[in-house]
Amino acid sequence: MSTAPAAPPIPVPSARSRPAARRLAESALTVPGLAAFEQTVRDTREHVLTVAELVPLHQLHGWHYDEGTGFIAHESGRFFSVEGLQVETQSPLTTWGQPIVNQPETGILGLLVKEIDGILHFLMQLKAEPGNRNGLQLSPTVQATWSNYTGVHGGLPVPYLEFFQDPARRRVIADARQSEQGSRFLRKRNRNMIVETEEPVEARNGFVWLTLGQIHRLLATEDLVNMCTRSVLACLPLGDGASARNEGFGAALARSLARGGPELHPLVNVLSWITEARTRSETRTRTVSLDALTDWEFTGGRIRHRAGRHFDVIGVRVKAVSREVGQWWQPMIRAQSTQLAALLVTHVRGVLHVLMQLRAEPGLTDAAELAPTVQCTPDDCAQLPPVERPPFLDLVQNARTADIRFDTVLSDEGGRFYHTGSRHLVVETGWLPEPPDFRWLTLGQLEELTQHSHYVNIQARSVLACLRSLFHGGDR
Amino acid sequence: MSTAPAAPPIPVPSARSRPAARRLAESALTVPGLAAFEQTVRDTREHVLTVAELVPLHQLHGWHYDEGTGFIAHESGRFFSVEGLQVETQSPLTTWGQPIVNQPETGILGLLVKEIDGILHFLMQLKAEPGNRNGLQLSPTVQATWSNYTGVHGGLPVPYLEFFQDPARRRVIADARQSEQGSRFLRKRNRNMIVETEEPVEARNGFVWLTLGQIHRLLATEDLVNMCTRSVLACLPLGDGASARNEGFGAALARSLARGGPELHPLVNVLSWITEARTRSETRTRTVSLDALTDWEFTGGRIRHRAGRHFDVIGVRVKAVSREVGQWWQPMIRAQSTQLAALLVTHVRGVLHVLMQLRAEPGLTDAAELAPTVQCTPDDCAQLPPVERPPFLDLVQNARTADIRFDTVLSDEGGRFYHTGSRHLVVETGWLPEPPDFRWLTLGQLEELTQHSHYVNIQARSVLACLRSLFHGGDR
Repeated sequence: MSTAPAAPPIPVPSARSRPAARRLAESALTVPGLAAFEQTVRDTREHVLTVAELVPLHQLHGWHYDEGTGFIAHESGRFFSVEGLQVETQSPLTTWGQPIVNQPETGILGLLVKEIDGILHFLMQLKAEPGNRNGLQLSPTVQATWSNYTGVHGGLPVPYLEFFQDPARRRVIADARQSEQGSRFLRKRNRNMIVETEEPVEARNGFVWLTLGQIHRLLATEDLVNMCTRSVLACLPLGDGASARNEGFGAALARSLARGGPELHPLVNVLSWITEARTRSETRTRTVSLDALTDWEFTGGRIRHRAGRHFDVIGVRVKAVSREVGQWWQPMIRAQSTQLAALLVTHVRGVLHVLMQLRAEPGLTDAAELAPTVQCTPDDCAQLPPVERPPFLDLVQNARTADIRFDTVLSDEGGRFYHTGSRHLVVETGWLPEPPDFRWLTLGQLEELTQHSHYVNIQARSVLACLRSLFHGGDR
Repeated sequence: MSTAPAAPPIPVPSARSRPAARRLAESALTVPGLAAFEQTVRDTREHVLTVAELVPLHQLHGWHYDEGTGFIAHESGRFFSVEGLQVETQSPLTTWGQPIVNQPETGILGLLVKEIDGILHFLMQLKAEPGNRNGLQLSPTVQATWSNYTGVHGGLPVPYLEFFQDPARRRVIADARQSEQGSRFLRKRNRNMIVETEEPVEARNGFVWLTLGQIHRLLATEDLVNMCTRSVLACLPLGDGASARNEGFGAALARSLARGGPELHPLVNVLSWITEARTRSETRTRTVSLDALTDWEFTGGRIRHRAGRHFDVIGVRVKAVSREVGQWWQPMIRAQSTQLAALLVTHVRGVLHVLMQLRAEPGLTDAAELAPTVQCTPDDCAQLPPVERPPFLDLVQNARTADIRFDTVLSDEGGRFYHTGSRHLVVETGWLPEPPDFRWLTLGQLEELTQHSHYVNIQARSVLACLRSLFHGGDR
């Protein structure tokens, strides 16, 4: 061996840098009063001047239907396009066509975290999005498409972006690209990042520092914590923060979060089950003209399903102050009715297990991802005969109040979805056998999988964030 | 909570089912003599009747150049096609065109493992592939494309396939889809599986049971252990089998394999570095007619690079007995000269670290994967000025004999590559600072990443299998 400069020392955790998980757990257990914060939200909401009005798709300034491709696109070629997608699945063999949003770029959903008085606080943004029913919702510190943060539409710089771009300034707590809705977006992914800083950071106007406990409390408020925040929260490594000897839901939840704890299925078997399903469920898709979608029609200035199911593609004109650009037009997705993202949870030898479904969706990067126990639009299922209804739908919809642990309607992302949301439901049940595409997993296993891309879909991340918000340390 | 059937017990490891890692380590330390095996290989090789003769591409029976697409395809529409690929990378901004093999199906590379006299043995196949320089090489138990194992070309059933298809009959040790060469294949992946069985299994003609120690020893033989075997070996969870207190290379290697041991970069930082590079290095590709590739020409019955670099696409006629089909024609890839897959390794506080490169390739499913320290065709680099030569190429090529830990030429997969191989080289060095796209990682970290898809490329898996073959338990 040649003599050369010495290697740097292997970093040893100091007393000061306690494990992120423990400090996150402490932040989750710290819940200062929220009255002042809620008053701020109400006050700000009254002054938010983001107004979205419906406009026929063919009158959207800057957008056009391209006769060549059959897509709706922006004249700049940027942002996104609405295209037709023809889908063919192998098992079971089915085919369908649908409109889909194609936005082939990776945005950033970034949460900035900092110790204040020894407790981790999260810098949250009060952000108005055109699709929000109530104007303002609670966003991550940075929620920016590639177009936003590279300034394509000539807007203002994105505040705090530098903490997520300069590796030298950040201590990374989590960082992976995660999928968006695979039945609405074609291979869209966002980089879900949580970064800690020790630099002094001032909360600018429209930003607030909250503890994890406060954010958890706020998740129970209808339409307040937005989908991007929920997505990133699900990637937080709470795992080792838990210590629990007690009985009961809280203790079983804490034990479920612990990595490497007792679990029904070893992780290698879970990974093999996913590999098997992905190999089997590969889906052929091709983009086609919107005109070629026989089940869909352009009528009344929007694209709708002929049977009135699924969703509409609509046009909106947005007026906003305190946004990058004061006025713009864009297509949006509007669901026909409230969707459902429901988790069944059960105790297995004192450890909470969650029933996850492996679900293929045409826009996913890798065939299939873990979804909530039930993910559907209940109104679309109401007419189906029992055998065709999604498994467990009736069970979660008819759950006794005493078995419901979480039940709140929360919005889809307001930049693309108009007045569209899902009921987020967590129901406790006794043991149920697993159908082939379902497995009982622990929260620790799901947390390990969210370290990586493309395992846990956005509906699952969203409702898992709600379940994890019930974490109270375990011994209470 | 409703009363319902009780949950099954959480499995507890019994004395009988010791952890796979420990039993794999025992198998690695068991090395019965190989004289009889090597005689069998020599004998069998003489009787192998697989002969591949070069045939001009336009005389390949069953294959044609499709005027519409500009691809070379099989008349059945099955197997694979040779297409043109136009590539545009963002940073640095470059564009090029090249032929690429499109085979959009997931094959199985399966290793069957079984305890014989208390030691894990691997069922290996002596398999003749048309591209092998020496006829016969050592394959996994099952090495089958989707076309093979679903019987598209009307061949014989694939032996032992059932152990990899029926979940109830297998105990999975590893199972993930992994990429093939991203500069030769368009998003091709194989399912790398290692499965243990307790059923009685007879080694059929052409199959042999070997310990991991024997396979490791055979890796040092030129062109014997084939690429598919090396790929799967790299996914074996050796991790916890290591116990080492000594000094020296073997002990540092054993400590490097241990999961959660001391490491220069915490895994979350490694994942963030990968996410950053993937977000930055997204590549635009589109398939084009082979005729549209300006740097390539069809001449002498093959497709070649005009400057004689990279590879040729050639045609071969194959005659074989003891294969699914007795005779067939197919296009193959032939490299212009021997490639190089080299790892630099160093000791960091007594733990071996490997210098891995994050490398974008146009055919990869997810933009960039971890590659060996040096992955190139040295002859293609010989004329380049020093500043354009791959980092560390000169260092590994000029290494002193005393610093070389492994050095063997091993073949690329003989079903698609004709007389094509890479020098597999492991060189020990002192500390070297990391360029931006390089990181010193432990073998434990790399092993954890190979549990998942799309992190470690096939050249890296291949040479990591060689490095891991030097595992001797650590205390010798």
